[in-house]
Amino acid sequence: MKSLNIGLIGTGYMGKCHALAWNAVAAVFGDVPRPRLTVLAEASQDLAERKARELGFARATGDWRSLVADPEVDVVSITTPNAFHPDMAIAALEAGKHVWCEKPMATRLFDAERMLAAARASGRVAALGYNYIQNPVMRLIRRLLDEGQIGEVNHVRVEMDEDFMADPEELFYWKSEASSGHGALDDFAVHPLSLLWTLVGGVRRVCGHMAKPYADRPVQGGGRRAVETYDIATVLMELESGVSGLLAVNRSAWGRKGRIAVQIFGSKGTIVYDQERMNEVQLYTADGGKETQGFRTILASPHHPPYDKFIPAPGHGLGFNDLKVIECRELIRRIEGDAAHLITFEEGILIERTVDAMARSAHEGRWVEV
Amino acid sequence: MKSLNIGLIGTGYMGKCHALAWNAVAAVFGDVPRPRLTVLAEASQDLAERKARELGFARATGDWRSLVADPEVDVVSITTPNAFHPDMAIAALEAGKHVWCEKPMATRLFDAERMLAAARASGRVAALGYNYIQNPVMRLIRRLLDEGQIGEVNHVRVEMDEDFMADPEELFYWKSEASSGHGALDDFAVHPLSLLWTLVGGVRRVCGHMAKPYADRPVQGGGRRAVETYDIATVLMELESGVSGLLAVNRSAWGRKGRIAVQIFGSKGTIVYDQERMNEVQLYTADGGKETQGFRTILASPHHPPYDKFIPAPGHGLGFNDLKVIECRELIRRIEGDAAHLITFEEGILIERTVDAMARSAHEGRWVEV
Amino acid sequence: MKSLNIGLIGTGYMGKCHALAWNAVAAVFGDVPRPRLTVLAEASQDLAERKARELGFARATGDWRSLVADPEVDVVSITTPNAFHPDMAIAALEAGKHVWCEKPMATRLFDAERMLAAARASGRVAALGYNYIQNPVMRLIRRLLDEGQIGEVNHVRVEMDEDFMADPEELFYWKSEASSGHGALDDFAVHPLSLLWTLVGGVRRVCGHMAKPYADRPVQGGGRRAVETYDIATVLMELESGVSGLLAVNRSAWGRKGRIAVQIFGSKGTIVYDQERMNEVQLYTADGGKETQGFRTILASPHHPPYDKFIPAPGHGLGFNDLKVIECRELIRRIEGDAAHLITFEEGILIERTVDAMARSAHEGRWVEV
Amino acid sequence: MKSLNIGLIGTGYMGKCHALAWNAVAAVFGDVPRPRLTVLAEASQDLAERKARELGFARATGDWRSLVADPEVDVVSITTPNAFHPDMAIAALEAGKHVWCEKPMATRLFDAERMLAAARASGRVAALGYNYIQNPVMRLIRRLLDEGQIGEVNHVRVEMDEDFMADPEELFYWKSEASSGHGALDDFAVHPLSLLWTLVGGVRRVCGHMAKPYADRPVQGGGRRAVETYDIATVLMELESGVSGLLAVNRSAWGRKGRIAVQIFGSKGTIVYDQERMNEVQLYTADGGKETQGFRTILASPHHPPYDKFIPAPGHGLGFNDLKVIECRELIRRIEGDAAHLITFEEGILIERTVDAMARSAHEGRWVEV
Repeated sequence: MKSLNIGLIGTGYMGKCHALAWNAVAAVFGDVPRPRLTVLAEASQDLAERKARELGFARATGDWRSLVADPEVDVVSITTPNAFHPDMAIAALEAGKHVWCEKPMATRLFDAERMLAAARASGRVAALGYNYIQNPVMRLIRRLLDEGQIGEVNHVRVEMDEDFMADPEELFYWKSEASSGHGALDDFAVHPLSLLWTLVGGVRRVCGHMAKPYADRPVQGGGRRAVETYDIATVLMELESGVSGLLAVNRSAWGRKGRIAVQIFGSKGTIVYDQERMNEVQLYTADGGKETQGFRTILASPHHPPYDKFIPAPGHGLGFNDLKVIECRELIRRIEGDAAHLITFEEGILIERTVDAMARSAHEGRWVEV
Repeated sequence: MKSLNIGLIGTGYMGKCHALAWNAVAAVFGDVPRPRLTVLAEASQDLAERKARELGFARATGDWRSLVADPEVDVVSITTPNAFHPDMAIAALEAGKHVWCEKPMATRLFDAERMLAAARASGRVAALGYNYIQNPVMRLIRRLLDEGQIGEVNHVRVEMDEDFMADPEELFYWKSEASSGHGALDDFAVHPLSLLWTLVGGVRRVCGHMAKPYADRPVQGGGRRAVETYDIATVLMELESGVSGLLAVNRSAWGRKGRIAVQIFGSKGTIVYDQERMNEVQLYTADGGKETQGFRTILASPHHPPYDKFIPAPGHGLGFNDLKVIECRELIRRIEGDAAHLITFEEGILIERTVDAMARSAHEGRWVEV
Repeated sequence: MKSLNIGLIGTGYMGKCHALAWNAVAAVFGDVPRPRLTVLAEASQDLAERKARELGFARATGDWRSLVADPEVDVVSITTPNAFHPDMAIAALEAGKHVWCEKPMATRLFDAERMLAAARASGRVAALGYNYIQNPVMRLIRRLLDEGQIGEVNHVRVEMDEDFMADPEELFYWKSEASSGHGALDDFAVHPLSLLWTLVGGVRRVCGHMAKPYADRPVQGGGRRAVETYDIATVLMELESGVSGLLAVNRSAWGRKGRIAVQIFGSKGTIVYDQERMNEVQLYTADGGKETQGFRTILASPHHPPYDKFIPAPGHGLGFNDLKVIECRELIRRIEGDAAHLITFEEGILIERTVDAMARSAHEGRWVEV
Repeated sequence: MKSLNIGLIGTGYMGKCHALAWNAVAAVFGDVPRPRLTVLAEASQDLAERKARELGFARATGDWRSLVADPEVDVVSITTPNAFHPDMAIAALEAGKHVWCEKPMATRLFDAERMLAAARASGRVAALGYNYIQNPVMRLIRRLLDEGQIGEVNHVRVEMDEDFMADPEELFYWKSEASSGHGALDDFAVHPLSLLWTLVGGVRRVCGHMAKPYADRPVQGGGRRAVETYDIATVLMELESGVSGLLAVNRSAWGRKGRIAVQIFGSKGTIVYDQERMNEVQLYTADGGKETQGFRTILASPHHPPYDKFIPAPGHGLGFNDLKVIECRELIRRIEGDAAHLITFEEGILIERTVDAMARSAHEGRWVEV
């Protein structure tokens, strides 16, 4: 296995997260060559150079196209705002690079489809940054489902809530503009759908509703501007498997900080998870004496790989950034040609189409096939 | 205030609960004359006599019509299976009795409307047994909303889940027959709706979905029979206030025993409640320093009347049966002509209509006005 | 079985609780004759009469001695302040009555020993109001221990915390006077010890420490007075069984309302309980696959008798007052000559001696044998 | 600020944790030069070379003395078993290196004192790996205390429990030998004491008790061997401030995986923390209306620095390994001559002396001054 040369575009929230993952993956897993942090692109040469120093990249550029064209680069991490993903990902794939692009793929379904076409044409790995699926606890849930520990799944509920849009007096900014998309559906729904996708499969039909908690917001300099996006969405679903599902997302949910609440009901038990306590899973199984049945809280531990690669002791806790390190390891695995637990453009497009169907359904007030 | 003479029909789950409430209400509140437990009706004279002895009633009858006609009786508690409610309630009202009838009103909307008509014609108090609204913690929530502690409400989610239908190998019984109604909607939805009704008002439009977790169930003697009711239902709602709402009910939810989970989102905070921890409410308010904001767990206490009538110490906990004692006190208040916190047939019919609209919506696959 | 005639002395916190229990026990359990609420004693005739009306007693007296001497009375409930217990209990026993006395027995060990002597001499039932042991969940814990579900117990920790003395600016009152006893030890320790007693047995040796969170408190009219009691106590214990134990009590613990936190560690598992969530018990057992081990939350249910006598549905929750109804049933059982789950003066004296040893140990700064 | 050259001795649990921290610190904080991972020492040259490749170190050695003597090395990370700490730390300090040594300092107080003397003589930074104090949530607690949010602290309880010694049928190994120390006290107590030290100060007097849950354990090849160490310890404490304290540690506590439960009681409120939910702190303050008081759950967020250096979004969660990255940043700060939040040998020795006093107290059955 050769050492990969990495190019990183963007150094915001997710850019730093990618950089930390590329820095850590070899030391954590101990079975891959250390990636070479080759080149970093930012909006300007100055910023790029400063960030390259901080994040450990050898070279810097203010022009992402030069990074994408760089013959030394094997993999391109794309962590810019969503609107930039299509151009960057397509260019990188056309240049023969593997791509690790943050989710969602694009702001318009049309662009996501173009990205998928480019990935197929290139034959390269085109992976998406759905990090929540990498949680060892999420893998435990998948394993419990595969083993039939809760029997046949018959109902699923997923909620995702945060409160960064909860204050009605915060200034109007681009997230309230129609050009940014539908609102909470774009922002959030892809995450719960990525979990559903890996746990219980795809969605067949949806019936959605979207709501605006606040009609308008103040603008700098005075006055108020009408809000154009929907910070709340609720969706009835029928999954491919026929299972009944429910999705609720709210980015104006005071007090919720990183909640992704999953409830999976089966014929023999129930599984409950909340991302705000990402090192725990609740499992109820209908076996043993009735007087001792109850939801058990399972703490993440070395018995839930690859937790063991981070910490040999149970219950000590992984963090949000650790999930990206696991994702990075899976990406390398896929690049090596091995099976990997990863959402690529092939699966990602299904998530994007589902979100698109949800939004159409909400606008048209009726059930829509995905 | 004169002492009321009580007639009780039925001594099952709720019959006993009523009896305990009539036994306790004077001692708990100390401000009402002790009700006289006058006559109890059951299916047979023998059973009625045994139960009258146990529950402290002076007389017993195997014929509910004689109880309803009894000139001594002031109030009739109706706690029989739902299908019997209309005949009994109407007869009691026509005989000039006050009625305290368990919810829901009836198995068919048509009958519930007849009951309402009888109540209006009689001029008597016709109350329904929506005991969850009597929780002191629920009154606290109402007070917090009234005070604007979470600002303007903009989104509501309610779930109600139990697991008494969760075992697919339990024998087919009447709850799986179409004649019993729609399924979870009838059984459960009225409870969350009673909470919504008292906390945030009525429902304007709904779009529902119903699902059968199990296609069939074993029958005594062998073979299996197709299930005709829906143990799972999910509903999108628009409230009268314009607020976006979500309802999910599941009576095959392994591990859930008495869950009624309420989430109320507002412009300044959030309130969360779960009936399985009925002495707690979670409150998040967006004030004070950001570094110390968080959901606070408020334990029921004498500061939440009428908890103080039961226990002078905080955090010691009321139980499910105590809620019926509070309801009983409210009923007496209403009979005395005072304002009371109670769902009567006038409000109950709105809940029944809402459930009916939800079921129609699910069958027709479209939004329906209530 | 004949119907018992009840005399109640005191109508405060616990007096009302006794009255509610005597009112409810027959209806809840359905297998005992309804007790006759014969006579109630309070400090004055007026108050006694008002309370008798409220609580359903036939007669009233301002003189407890006449109640105790009343030939009609079979059982005397004693719910007055602790200092009055000895005289009342001894008089009642000498008059041939059964006694149901609130805990602790007395404010001085000497008096408690006198009470025990009177009980022995009388041959009557002399029971103490240790209601927490009556929780169906507590019986479940006892059953789990008996079944060896957590193996051999090897360590126990118990905490009891409330906050009614937490405010340093509340006026000095009798609980801060030395004449009231040691402080938190008297007030609280008997409760955890009653649980330990029924779950894991008695205490052999103790080493205690007591602390005053506040040196003085304001007095009415100005100035401050030195606090003489200890609101905090911590104790190392060796149980009769040789097991290592720990006790901590704090009546100035802000935010704790009715916390009695129990942790029982065994060779195969652990049991955790908190009175503030009195309908739950946490159980961890070291069996099954390591990847699914976790503390399970068992909700109180009809599988935990006598919960079923109150509610036929699981997870709906008993309240604090319900525990006294169970205790009342046990008392009647004992009066009938049957085995009962009850702490009588025989066992209660052991608890009092243990508390006494703890206080001595704290004063002397050394280990003391109980 | 120049880039530091790092030497790492040991690559077990904590060795890997140090390596990950040295790898990540520059990228996470963005304000320090990237450390150079210069040389790694392990038990053999082969192992050292393999680990150096994995963890990103330039050179490898099978001889820790050569690492300590290496003129290029600025800082030596010591992560070997505790018994090796004294020789390595003293040698490194004598060679003029800064030392970052895992806790506890040594297995014998005598050795710890020698280490302190060496640190003083060298004038170098000699820091200990008490990572739990680095949790942003722990800093929040400290800040809350400093601001007086819970008033004057008057009582503290700390528990630390894990279950790696809980199985009585696990083979006897060195942790049960007397030569390894006292048992849980050595293993665990230093952690809670490090938290107490930084939050509420040092300990003045102690009275301890130690217990063996299992008398013997099986040995390889058959038979059983008597256990010589104490897996359970409980300690009464008086802090320097006069505050009453309690410590309990148990390494045979089934179900506890990484529990460090802290309760700090004050005159205006209470703070509660559990390491198993390391991204949460519970705060109760006795202000505002009594009807809305309750423990609030504060989720770690960018408002709790340096959480913001890892993730810009609240509630997303740090992990155990992130704490070591923060510690690493503090160490660098101290090396630069700045104030830093760090337990050095100067403070560490106080913790070691306290543990020593606890063990003596337990053996002698009496209170002991630290």
